[in-house]
Amino acid sequence: MITPAHLCIRLHPPQTAQIDSVKLEKTIREVVGNPFFISSYQVTTILEQNPGLTIDRLLQELVPIAQFFARPPISDYKVGVVGLGLSGNIYLGVNLEFGDLPATIHGEQFMTINARNHGEQYITKMALSAAPCGCCRQFLNEIGNQPGMRASDINFLIPQKPLYTLGQLLPEAFGPGDLGVQGGLLSPMPIPNSLNLYERARQAAVSSYAPYSKCPSGVALQLKDGRIFSGSYVENAAFNPAVPPLTSALVSVVAASASYQDIVSIVLCENATGTVRQGIPTMDVIQKICPNAQFNTINP
Amino acid sequence: MITPAHLCIRLHPPQTAQIDSVKLEKTIREVVGNPFFISSYQVTTILEQNPGLTIDRLLQELVPIAQFFARPPISDYKVGVVGLGLSGNIYLGVNLEFGDLPATIHGEQFMTINARNHGEQYITKMALSAAPCGCCRQFLNEIGNQPGMRASDINFLIPQKPLYTLGQLLPEAFGPGDLGVQGGLLSPMPIPNSLNLYERARQAAVSSYAPYSKCPSGVALQLKDGRIFSGSYVENAAFNPAVPPLTSALVSVVAASASYQDIVSIVLCENATGTVRQGIPTMDVIQKICPNAQFNTINP
Repeated sequence: MITPAHLCIRLHPPQTAQIDSVKLEKTIREVVGNPFFISSYQVTTILEQNPGLTIDRLLQELVPIAQFFARPPISDYKVGVVGLGLSGNIYLGVNLEFGDLPATIHGEQFMTINARNHGEQYITKMALSAAPCGCCRQFLNEIGNQPGMRASDINFLIPQKPLYTLGQLLPEAFGPGDLGVQGGLLSPMPIPNSLNLYERARQAAVSSYAPYSKCPSGVALQLKDGRIFSGSYVENAAFNPAVPPLTSALVSVVAASASYQDIVSIVLCENATGTVRQGIPTMDVIQKICPNAQFNTINP
Repeated sequence: MITPAHLCIRLHPPQTAQIDSVKLEKTIREVVGNPFFISSYQVTTILEQNPGLTIDRLLQELVPIAQFFARPPISDYKVGVVGLGLSGNIYLGVNLEFGDLPATIHGEQFMTINARNHGEQYITKMALSAAPCGCCRQFLNEIGNQPGMRASDINFLIPQKPLYTLGQLLPEAFGPGDLGVQGGLLSPMPIPNSLNLYERARQAAVSSYAPYSKCPSGVALQLKDGRIFSGSYVENAAFNPAVPPLTSALVSVVAASASYQDIVSIVLCENATGTVRQGIPTMDVIQKICPNAQFNTINP
């Protein structure tokens, strides 16, 4: 449940004298129900009601809101990332850490998976609470290399820094092209909400981005209120910054302001004989964040 | 056991006409017992016996030898990295993947941990089989920021590319300084070979680089021939490219040309109540690579 207090904006020093900060905060409160996803229509409304407000400034104003929702129990270092999709939609990202396990998802990865879960095709720019780490630069480089949607052209608004592109932040990148892979991690197949838990896990596996291992996998999970969320395995040319399917599904749980403890059932869909398997790390995370949830594994 | 066949050098196209490739190969075979560690004395001998050979060219010539020793059962993509320490010693690095687990150590990480296990203070340059991924750039950035030993000054010899520094490959880096940490991951405390298995695990924990979580941990393992190897947990400001203690110890196992299956006993030393704990991921990897090994956990 997002309350108005959650949407209280800690404004940066004004970049232009024209912005009415109080009015902007009020507009965002009124227009936005869930700050993790702001539709292009809502974005247009916010901009129209705040003369002088630019899209860049709006992205930057949303960063501290994103930070508020971060869940880093180990480091207590809260990251906020706000991405603008080619669709005009805005996606928020935060960092998550899981129990005492040395496993985490960074804010940039969360934002990208959040956009992916909404069927976004490309991220044109993002505002961040700090410069992205090298792992996130590597992860974002997997967004692909299609005309008009090149990962290297993604813009970064970093506090107190000039505007950067990913190509500038990760020169001589090692990426999909080095391993003969076309395309990128966005533009997934949409997963119908009408499917049941097992069907959604299967569909999430089909929607995986696993061009290197050829081992797709997906997770669907159900909350005690009946809501179902799913997530797909998303790989990287450099392998390490891959996002496991449970983590992808947890992005949707966090974006819906739900608690891990509300998860009652989890289904992992993967090939039992694959060269990369998610079963063991998935169980490790479940044991830490929702040990009472029922866990099943199914074949694609 | 390193055989002469293992040291067969697949030479790059000559960069200078002065190098006698056959003689160089013969010299390396004669001088080097274990290619994962080449002492500064051996390096000097090789250079003296091959007029015209530069240290850069030697590093590049060793890259395919490193690649030969890589153990990537999942991707089958072999990475070779050859680093030159401030001491004049050369350290090789390869990529490792563990069973069907989505866990790996990259060649650049291996080389750095290998150097660390030898008490190296700084890496001045490295030759690689391909451009380093963003995660490795992030990992290497943790080498520190002391005068004369700045991570940003490390040189990279990448095939068909100009000479780069880490500062150029990872501009606007997020690093230790952003979290108020001085120093870096190298210059660890040496661990005496005379210690027994449990003492070495404790000493490896003491030698950890864990300035963020303050949760040091170490692993010592014994092979069936009685040899003991140890490894420390090595953290990163961005957390994800951290190297777990078992992986650090496996670097030494691989560098000694031993098999994972030869491991008969493993001891993990960590605080049972820490906010980051290695027990579960350590057991996962043991289950995959040496399921018959005895495993014990002890407190520091």
